[in-house]
Amino acid sequence: MDDTPGYSDDKTAVLKRLRRIEGQVRGIERMVEDDTYCIDVLTQVSATTKALEAVALKLLDEHLAHCVVDAAKRGGPEADAKVKEASAAIARLVRS
Amino acid sequence: MDDTPGYSDDKTAVLKRLRRIEGQVRGIERMVEDDTYCIDVLTQVSATTKALEAVALKLLDEHLAHCVVDAAKRGGPEADAKVKEASAAIARLVRS
Amino acid sequence: MDDTPGYSDDKTAVLKRLRRIEGQVRGIERMVEDDTYCIDVLTQVSATTKALEAVALKLLDEHLAHCVVDAAKRGGPEADAKVKEASAAIARLVRS
Amino acid sequence: MDDTPGYSDDKTAVLKRLRRIEGQVRGIERMVEDDTYCIDVLTQVSATTKALEAVALKLLDEHLAHCVVDAAKRGGPEADAKVKEASAAIARLVRS
Repeated sequence: MDDTPGYSDDKTAVLKRLRRIEGQVRGIERMVEDDTYCIDVLTQVSATTKALEAVALKLLDEHLAHCVVDAAKRGGPEADAKVKEASAAIARLVRS
Repeated sequence: MDDTPGYSDDKTAVLKRLRRIEGQVRGIERMVEDDTYCIDVLTQVSATTKALEAVALKLLDEHLAHCVVDAAKRGGPEADAKVKEASAAIARLVRS
Repeated sequence: MDDTPGYSDDKTAVLKRLRRIEGQVRGIERMVEDDTYCIDVLTQVSATTKALEAVALKLLDEHLAHCVVDAAKRGGPEADAKVKEASAAIARLVRS
Repeated sequence: MDDTPGYSDDKTAVLKRLRRIEGQVRGIERMVEDDTYCIDVLTQVSATTKALEAVALKLLDEHLAHCVVDAAKRGGPEADAKVKEASAAIARLVRS
């Protein structure tokens, strides 16, 4: 069995996005320190939440395309377990 | 290729949930007709949204477990297409 | 104190939207009865969830513009209570 | 008119939460660098999204309790403008 996570090809792209999100969070901190108007802070928080969700959807897509599809090809109980695990992650994402 | 949708085993359960949701929506209509206090109407709208999301997560889980896993077993470009399609549905769900 | 809910002016418009949503839910039931492809059912569920959220945002906007603003004008502990109640409704909505 | 944003009393608490979120994002970067299993990365992304939403709900509550209530007390067109602006921010939040 291959232990490489599904996002390994796009690791650099995923890391780049996460570093940009880290910068967005630091930007929100500075806005709060500078007493920026609440609504402008909220707009940045919404944008950062959307960016985080986009990373999650990217990771999930890679996970389905690699880990879940590979487990399905091998068949057996592992395929069911992988689908169950992916569905639980999707539910956490939809509810977050 | 099998055309039975993934939820076919749970069709009765899914329909039962949808009929309950239909009843919840009718209940909200009655609340609005009766000039029920806004916040109480909103509480019912949130509960109904959650119930709809739960149906979506159920349908998605069945879809992954059947349609996507079966396509993965058969392999080829259809497997990639099914994953792409499922990822797009998950994105719509997360953003809705 | 005025007991008319905030949405009373738009009652007809809100009811019209809710009846359309009820129709969408019935449409999803028919899709499931007819064994429609999972992804197409999911697309309709996402659309219906979005329509319900739009009703909730409309109700909330009317509630802030009338009930919360009126309570704020009267002042006193009732204004605080109305804001607390509205914030709790917003949190339920964001998390649903 | 008072230009202090609504969150000024809780500025320290909000900043503390944002710094923790910044740390969570850095933690996710390290997980990706270390090829952590996709599902475990996703769990952390969902937790961070929830934490950001909680900050947004806190800021919004303070905004309603201060900026919107104060504008309502002063009355006039500014009150309407503040409600409209708050409703738009809530819509962005619900849809993010």
